[in-house]
Amino acid sequence: MELLDNINNTTLKELTDSELSALMLQIRERLIQNVANTGGHLASNLGVVELTVALHRVLELDEDKLIWDTGHQSYVHKMLTERGALLPTLRKEGGLAGFPKRSESKYDHYDTGHTGSSISAALGMAHARDISNEDYKVAVVIGDGALSEGVALEGLNNCGELSSQLLIVFNDNGMSISKNVGGFAKRLTKMRTSSRYKLTKSRFKKAFLSVPLVGKPLMKFFDRSKDALRSLFLPKTMFEEFGVTYLGPVDGHNVEDMSQIFRKALELNTPVLVHVRTVKGRGYESAEYNPEKYHSVRAYSSSKSTTCISFTQAFGDAICHIANSNKGVAGITAAMCTGTGLDKFSKLYNERFFDVGISEQHAVTFAAGLALTGMRPVVAIYSSFLQRSVDQIISDVCLQRLPVVLCLDHAGFVGEDGETHHGLFDISYLTMAPYMRVYAPAFPHELLPMLEECIKSDSPCAIRYPKDITLTEDDSLLNDSLKPISNTEPFIREARLGNGERKICVVALGVMLQEAYKAAKRLCGQGFTVDVIEVGVISPSSTNILSSLNTRGYELLVTVEEGIIKGGFGEGLRSIITACPVITVGVENPFIPQMSVTRQRELAGIDAEGIYGKIKGRLGF
Amino acid sequence: MELLDNINNTTLKELTDSELSALMLQIRERLIQNVANTGGHLASNLGVVELTVALHRVLELDEDKLIWDTGHQSYVHKMLTERGALLPTLRKEGGLAGFPKRSESKYDHYDTGHTGSSISAALGMAHARDISNEDYKVAVVIGDGALSEGVALEGLNNCGELSSQLLIVFNDNGMSISKNVGGFAKRLTKMRTSSRYKLTKSRFKKAFLSVPLVGKPLMKFFDRSKDALRSLFLPKTMFEEFGVTYLGPVDGHNVEDMSQIFRKALELNTPVLVHVRTVKGRGYESAEYNPEKYHSVRAYSSSKSTTCISFTQAFGDAICHIANSNKGVAGITAAMCTGTGLDKFSKLYNERFFDVGISEQHAVTFAAGLALTGMRPVVAIYSSFLQRSVDQIISDVCLQRLPVVLCLDHAGFVGEDGETHHGLFDISYLTMAPYMRVYAPAFPHELLPMLEECIKSDSPCAIRYPKDITLTEDDSLLNDSLKPISNTEPFIREARLGNGERKICVVALGVMLQEAYKAAKRLCGQGFTVDVIEVGVISPSSTNILSSLNTRGYELLVTVEEGIIKGGFGEGLRSIITACPVITVGVENPFIPQMSVTRQRELAGIDAEGIYGKIKGRLGF
Repeated sequence: MELLDNINNTTLKELTDSELSALMLQIRERLIQNVANTGGHLASNLGVVELTVALHRVLELDEDKLIWDTGHQSYVHKMLTERGALLPTLRKEGGLAGFPKRSESKYDHYDTGHTGSSISAALGMAHARDISNEDYKVAVVIGDGALSEGVALEGLNNCGELSSQLLIVFNDNGMSISKNVGGFAKRLTKMRTSSRYKLTKSRFKKAFLSVPLVGKPLMKFFDRSKDALRSLFLPKTMFEEFGVTYLGPVDGHNVEDMSQIFRKALELNTPVLVHVRTVKGRGYESAEYNPEKYHSVRAYSSSKSTTCISFTQAFGDAICHIANSNKGVAGITAAMCTGTGLDKFSKLYNERFFDVGISEQHAVTFAAGLALTGMRPVVAIYSSFLQRSVDQIISDVCLQRLPVVLCLDHAGFVGEDGETHHGLFDISYLTMAPYMRVYAPAFPHELLPMLEECIKSDSPCAIRYPKDITLTEDDSLLNDSLKPISNTEPFIREARLGNGERKICVVALGVMLQEAYKAAKRLCGQGFTVDVIEVGVISPSSTNILSSLNTRGYELLVTVEEGIIKGGFGEGLRSIITACPVITVGVENPFIPQMSVTRQRELAGIDAEGIYGKIKGRLGF
Repeated sequence: MELLDNINNTTLKELTDSELSALMLQIRERLIQNVANTGGHLASNLGVVELTVALHRVLELDEDKLIWDTGHQSYVHKMLTERGALLPTLRKEGGLAGFPKRSESKYDHYDTGHTGSSISAALGMAHARDISNEDYKVAVVIGDGALSEGVALEGLNNCGELSSQLLIVFNDNGMSISKNVGGFAKRLTKMRTSSRYKLTKSRFKKAFLSVPLVGKPLMKFFDRSKDALRSLFLPKTMFEEFGVTYLGPVDGHNVEDMSQIFRKALELNTPVLVHVRTVKGRGYESAEYNPEKYHSVRAYSSSKSTTCISFTQAFGDAICHIANSNKGVAGITAAMCTGTGLDKFSKLYNERFFDVGISEQHAVTFAAGLALTGMRPVVAIYSSFLQRSVDQIISDVCLQRLPVVLCLDHAGFVGEDGETHHGLFDISYLTMAPYMRVYAPAFPHELLPMLEECIKSDSPCAIRYPKDITLTEDDSLLNDSLKPISNTEPFIREARLGNGERKICVVALGVMLQEAYKAAKRLCGQGFTVDVIEVGVISPSSTNILSSLNTRGYELLVTVEEGIIKGGFGEGLRSIITACPVITVGVENPFIPQMSVTRQRELAGIDAEGIYGKIKGRLGF
């Protein structure tokens, strides 16, 4: 193990072939051992061991810039940049982040997390380098799945404007998270399976790569005779349509081949895309066999509480139940069929299921098109990723007041994936969209009636919920004790606790109900009567109902939500509560790094302790 | 003129060739006459006269769906669908919208306005048609400039999943709004200028188009022998990489040629892109000569007030002034160099100027890349279009706390372009982004010091302002009378009006200062003392300063902003004003159609009259 523990960007370059092989074996062993404990992206990292080593051999990372698109595949990069020993802390509080972080290492040059941003950022760096007459290299690693994402295609299209060095390593493993979709993916598959591939590889190596020192002049010749010679042994591709020089494909598990082609690409001093073929999960039999399952693994050894209930599954069951009787219901996902719980739907109602690939903007406008013809599209996307579609929600869905249903999984804090993946802005960006009703269940069993109501609506709706929730018997009692405030609105319910003189009201949005309830119980012990209100929907009718709270003589009203305060639920409610002071409990700083959801809520001050503390501070008891 | 006045989708199909020619001449004459009076998109509509006629001849618009990407080129479509007589009302209150509107005509099948959404929406409609076993046709018209937009590329990529009919008419005029940028545009230019084009055209016509009734069997043969025959006379393009059948190019000013190729494309029963070459401004000499200038024209005959001052120009001057001494300043636009005032900068500092094409997501992340290396990028994009970049603002710029400066022109109501183009959401989506300081000048002369402050900042900043403002002598006096509340913050100023017993405070964001001031003057006449406060920046320091208003004994505090109330400035301020009631004046319904900005503000209730009325209503005097 010493080899890996002493490696850095200089020593890596000095290793012999056999040392390199030993190093890569160590990397794979550590990945498999550790990710089993920490959870994380195993298959994609196993797939880029050689690719990362080759890049680190050709780049001088103290000067050069290396950007990992999405960044889930950066574990090997971290191990090779003096963070190997920290791998057991991956995705844990205070440990290594699961994505590149400039604050973590000077070798992480750009923070990623959302798919497709790498090329644009790298292009910015490359232009800045040229303007300031510096000469470092800029390199990007981007997967084939990412190339359905609009911003990646925008970036690629803009590469033609750069007349100097940019290396785009196109990591083609034939998978995004699940299988790729779209015309481009099909074209790639064809390219991979064509007999040309093998031919290309051997001829390319013979003509160009294996002869030392001949690369540059040969490449010049090669460029001059582009139309004649190149088309003989290089597949023409979309990349060239975008004005990017294309090299490859090259075997992504052969360090020597990749190092050579990377060096040549860097010498070309122009935007070059190197097509690297890798196998996701390489070197770990079960991951190689089923890469979707192992795309992101939960810690195998973690014991799950038996009362942990999945909102994702509740959504998946709910849409299937409704689709059974309503033939107009369609399900749409952006490459997250399993993650959003749509797998059962995709099998039962395949003709109405659309995995549009990683393309959230398209997913929403596509749904608008379906809705216009009378269908009832349900778009299931993680809250954080739906940030990409804000304009489509406003300009396509809401402006035409179309009955599109948005289902936002992973709303609120998401735990180990950290700051790029939290779903904390959705309440703000959804409630600012006209006509949009926003639902937030506190319990998974509420998803079905909420989705039923959304699908009956003739206007845009959204439902936001976390992946799962841990429920105790107490929560079950709470659920039974909650009664609707108004018989016209089942999703706004209340329960009264205690019977003290001083009356306060805690209004909780969605899953914050549990924390509000715990805080309320403590307050009862201090002589308060506390009305706990579950808000399951933000809409004109909920505004009417909640304005009735003005007549109840509360000393204080507290709103609680798992989302950014600015533009959130509490800020909106403040406008209608005039009879008593209002405190809004929510997230001030949404950029909390990897740790458990419980700890993130604690740090944000939105757990029971935080709520109690804010009320105590305000009332001064 | 009778021909045009009696035309509909049925009678159009019955016209003889000479009648068609006469009709198109009439269309052009009316366009030129009317757009001179109404303002609007002249050149693009002159360019699509024949294209629109050809589409209307092959489609049955009572059943088939036709979507105009962006929609600025839909005037001819409107004239041919029983709205010809209404052309003089174009872009006027109560008249024809400048973009397709489902509420205006059953022949407008999808509301567009923002570039690139058409393919996604059409794909949704086409899938819905297949699921419900209907058989109408779905067609899209999209320009070459739109194909740098991420959502258009996402949609195009997803076309490969559709196995039935979708017609994409690719209107290639070699221009977006100004010249196209990006690799794909270069490739198109090459395709256009290659000798193949002429050859293709004549061979294609000979082999395929000019023989009646032979189309279908020939097309089948054609498809079978794709690799051999097709590559001989059809240019391979990016579209085929995306899995879309490509036909063309065809002369976009020859109705007969286009009609035939459209019919063949519809028969193919698969996603087909027909490449149509048009000349923007065709048939109007001055527009053809200078299409950028005539892309969108203001009414030629409208007399401008001499006191109308341009924020756009003030921004353009400001960035040039700063860039002169600060070599790190870069200017970025997404195909709106002139519209955003960057033309002078683009000439003076060309090496630091980047027109990235219509690709707002890329523009922001590209700026993040520039900022990371120490540059000071200024991204100038219309407020409404920057909605496309919300995720990039959060996940690329703010998460890394990068000093990117966003300059949002066309903030607030935009007048004649109507509901798709208003910049009313920016205050909400910018203020929810952590670390973001949001500036809003009330006067154009404030842009320079604000931009200077932004560029000195080490954090993300945004400045939002309308295109222009009409100032009176009174406003000039107001400006002189305003004094900073705190000497640490020059952009929060106040002036006291009147000396009545009852004290109220009107806090205006940016250009709402003028309206607030007028309302305040009326209030003085009613015996009030009114403090008018100009808020030029929303930031932690402005929060501190404004919280001092609590000690002043106001009877009422009123906030005024030209933006959506939810998540806006007023809602945020409400959290810190505890000593008196607060009313937030802002926009409840942002979807106000085309009319003057003055009327839009009046309808929204955010002008002096609206502000005064709300205060009067609240205080009951």
